Amino acid sequence: MLEQLKEEVCAANLRLKTENLVILTWGNVSAIDRRSGMVAIKPSGIPYDQLKPEHIVIVSLESGATVEGNLKPSSDTPTHLELYRSFQDIGAIVHTHSIHATAWAQACAEIPAFGTTHADYFNGPIPCTRIMWAEEVQSDYELNTGKVIVERFKDLDPQLCPAVLVAHHGPFVWGDTADKAVENALVLEQLALMATQTRLVKPTSHEIPEHLHNKHFFRKHGTGAYYGQKSK
Amino acid sequence: MLEQLKEEVCAANLRLKTENLVILTWGNVSAIDRRSGMVAIKPSGIPYDQLKPEHIVIVSLESGATVEGNLKPSSDTPTHLELYRSFQDIGAIVHTHSIHATAWAQACAEIPAFGTTHADYFNGPIPCTRIMWAEEVQSDYELNTGKVIVERFKDLDPQLCPAVLVAHHGPFVWGDTADKAVENALVLEQLALMATQTRLVKPTSHEIPEHLHNKHFFRKHGTGAYYGQKSK
Amino acid sequence: MLEQLKEEVCAANLRLKTENLVILTWGNVSAIDRRSGMVAIKPSGIPYDQLKPEHIVIVSLESGATVEGNLKPSSDTPTHLELYRSFQDIGAIVHTHSIHATAWAQACAEIPAFGTTHADYFNGPIPCTRIMWAEEVQSDYELNTGKVIVERFKDLDPQLCPAVLVAHHGPFVWGDTADKAVENALVLEQLALMATQTRLVKPTSHEIPEHLHNKHFFRKHGTGAYYGQKSK
Amino acid sequence: MLEQLKEEVCAANLRLKTENLVILTWGNVSAIDRRSGMVAIKPSGIPYDQLKPEHIVIVSLESGATVEGNLKPSSDTPTHLELYRSFQDIGAIVHTHSIHATAWAQACAEIPAFGTTHADYFNGPIPCTRIMWAEEVQSDYELNTGKVIVERFKDLDPQLCPAVLVAHHGPFVWGDTADKAVENALVLEQLALMATQTRLVKPTSHEIPEHLHNKHFFRKHGTGAYYGQKSK
Repeated sequence: MLEQLKEEVCAANLRLKTENLVILTWGNVSAIDRRSGMVAIKPSGIPYDQLKPEHIVIVSLESGATVEGNLKPSSDTPTHLELYRSFQDIGAIVHTHSIHATAWAQACAEIPAFGTTHADYFNGPIPCTRIMWAEEVQSDYELNTGKVIVERFKDLDPQLCPAVLVAHHGPFVWGDTADKAVENALVLEQLALMATQTRLVKPTSHEIPEHLHNKHFFRKHGTGAYYGQKSK
Repeated sequence: MLEQLKEEVCAANLRLKTENLVILTWGNVSAIDRRSGMVAIKPSGIPYDQLKPEHIVIVSLESGATVEGNLKPSSDTPTHLELYRSFQDIGAIVHTHSIHATAWAQACAEIPAFGTTHADYFNGPIPCTRIMWAEEVQSDYELNTGKVIVERFKDLDPQLCPAVLVAHHGPFVWGDTADKAVENALVLEQLALMATQTRLVKPTSHEIPEHLHNKHFFRKHGTGAYYGQKSK
Repeated sequence: MLEQLKEEVCAANLRLKTENLVILTWGNVSAIDRRSGMVAIKPSGIPYDQLKPEHIVIVSLESGATVEGNLKPSSDTPTHLELYRSFQDIGAIVHTHSIHATAWAQACAEIPAFGTTHADYFNGPIPCTRIMWAEEVQSDYELNTGKVIVERFKDLDPQLCPAVLVAHHGPFVWGDTADKAVENALVLEQLALMATQTRLVKPTSHEIPEHLHNKHFFRKHGTGAYYGQKSK
Repeated sequence: MLEQLKEEVCAANLRLKTENLVILTWGNVSAIDRRSGMVAIKPSGIPYDQLKPEHIVIVSLESGATVEGNLKPSSDTPTHLELYRSFQDIGAIVHTHSIHATAWAQACAEIPAFGTTHADYFNGPIPCTRIMWAEEVQSDYELNTGKVIVERFKDLDPQLCPAVLVAHHGPFVWGDTADKAVENALVLEQLALMATQTRLVKPTSHEIPEHLHNKHFFRKHGTGAYYGQKSK
């Protein structure tokens, strides 16, 4: 079932490697078919160079049970499912430990919007969750990881800010499709590196003024967008 | 029309990718045919791996209207045109969000000339524009981006300093030809990284003395130049 | 003798190069056959691009003498042997001068556990040895290097922390197999870079809370592990 | 004449590119035939991808005149010749603007010996010249660059320290052969990066103790060396 979705999810997982966002097995991509309520996700601990579409596991959004596939799904599956349940307009999720985004997550710091590159993709800083409590970690850890992300987005719109840093952990990123979510993960990694370097150039660097931030974000998003070709 | 110029502009855009100056669609190159007043420029939002000479758009320097091509020109076209109008000796323009040059732009800081590598290409620091006002951003933003660059060059010669940082945005770079402008963008990125590292080695690093700066710049530029082969 | 082990050791040495953990001849991998008490190790000063399984030297764990091979074993052989004698459950050892792990070693600083990436592999900070005394350096230097590592692990379990930094020198890393030891060396290098960047983002960054550290370590190690496939 | 030397010099120049020590035309390698007093050197401003052995220029050590070749020799030729005249045991010279070594040169700071990687190749810090005076720059600049290097080595042995940083400029590196000089330039770049990172990890990092420095240097150099194979 969902053969095309499995192919897209497999290709997106492989792209994590070619974009240098992961080493070893450090990352995973999933995508959802909203109509059937089924999620296609990378199996746990499989090397990227062996990954094929038939390895992608199908799990039920509602129950979390494996519906198709012989391998165990990613141990992060409950986090993905919680995000799909709460962020009802997203179509795919990426988790990586990419170096620079993870450095900000490890510092428990949000990534300030220092320039138009950031503003082209995110309408504010990249938020960071609070640190999870011992009880949240000791049982249902992966589910609770999803819950602290959702808690952090209480006053944020996941469509306008398609990424989050989990404190002391790393980034979760999303998008309409698996490929778009990987693109957002790649953008996040560049923004994280640029932000670190901006601070290194001038520790007192200011964030981009609001009028310039809004201009760039809405030049590419929403009804007034005029970037790119109309056929897209 | 201008088939050779379109080929050069296409090749220069592709070189942005191979020189690691851009990811995704983050950059553009244009070149001008001064005799006809026509500018060849990258279309908006087209992935580099699909870009071909026939996609390059021809626009009129005077009116800004598209003269040839089925795609929309880069959304930065009005910035390019303003620079061609004001800097009458330049032949090509490159815009990127290359990591280290953008970090200095995001810090709203000019890049000091710390060594002979910088002095070989630029006769002073790489300037940074002022931050644009809300009115300048809200209407004719891309045109006004060109205008703040020109304003910054009131007392500077664009032939002696072929690059600028737009505050909170990124670099614009130029040269006689599309290929030379890309080369200058590559040099700028190296200089930006070297300057960040120089400050990291010693935060109180001084700029290169004027006599050494002039020696290196004029060893490669102007009537007394003696670097390279005469046939060049 | 031990043809398969020599092939594994040769392949692991070559992987040091492809993973960008070494340049020139800066590194070595060994593995032990506990049954026969024989250690297979890289020869000294041989370029990686010429290395073949037949070059791998077999030395005796007990005497240190070369049992098979025409080349001199790595000058670091006595360090490897001392570790195999003291850490009786390890199967392979890697030594590199990888840039970021070496920077922490040169700073004589342990690498703090800032996040779950670290906690997935190490159950605490990466320890650093004390600086060696002149007498320890002037005679039996390589053997004494092994001894200061063992001294540093007096209260540590090498199975729970498969790496160490030798002060002013660089990392030694181990694992069950040659390939797993190289994987741990690659992980260490990523963790070292991430830790440097985390401090750069926020100099006062805190280590990961103990409950989160334990969760991640024991999610992947020991009897309660649930990461990866059961068939592994 | 000297066809083999020209081939070696050409190959060494090309290796600068593959080792990522240069971009564009930013670097040059020469080698000397001491018996005939002839120096083989890269021509000025020729792109690496077009460089062939027949382009290598032969100049006289004594007069500096071109003895063979249709192209102008590197503009840095007088610097090379001054070093060959003063450092009578060196066989080849490399000049680059490699990023991290150049950052230390731009900071006018010597590179401290923080670890054994450094001690394996250099018996002390990498020295930096004084800044050149205006008169030294305005006439015979390239010759005077050689002279300030020689001045810096008044109390140093170029055999024990095969590199120097020219203040506000970049590194000059040497060795017995063109290939060995490029290897030293590659090592220098790694050491420069490691030193910057060591300071970033801990700004108060100390240099390696003298007994450890000597051990590593003389383990690889001089009559007591025991690193590598005897056949080397």
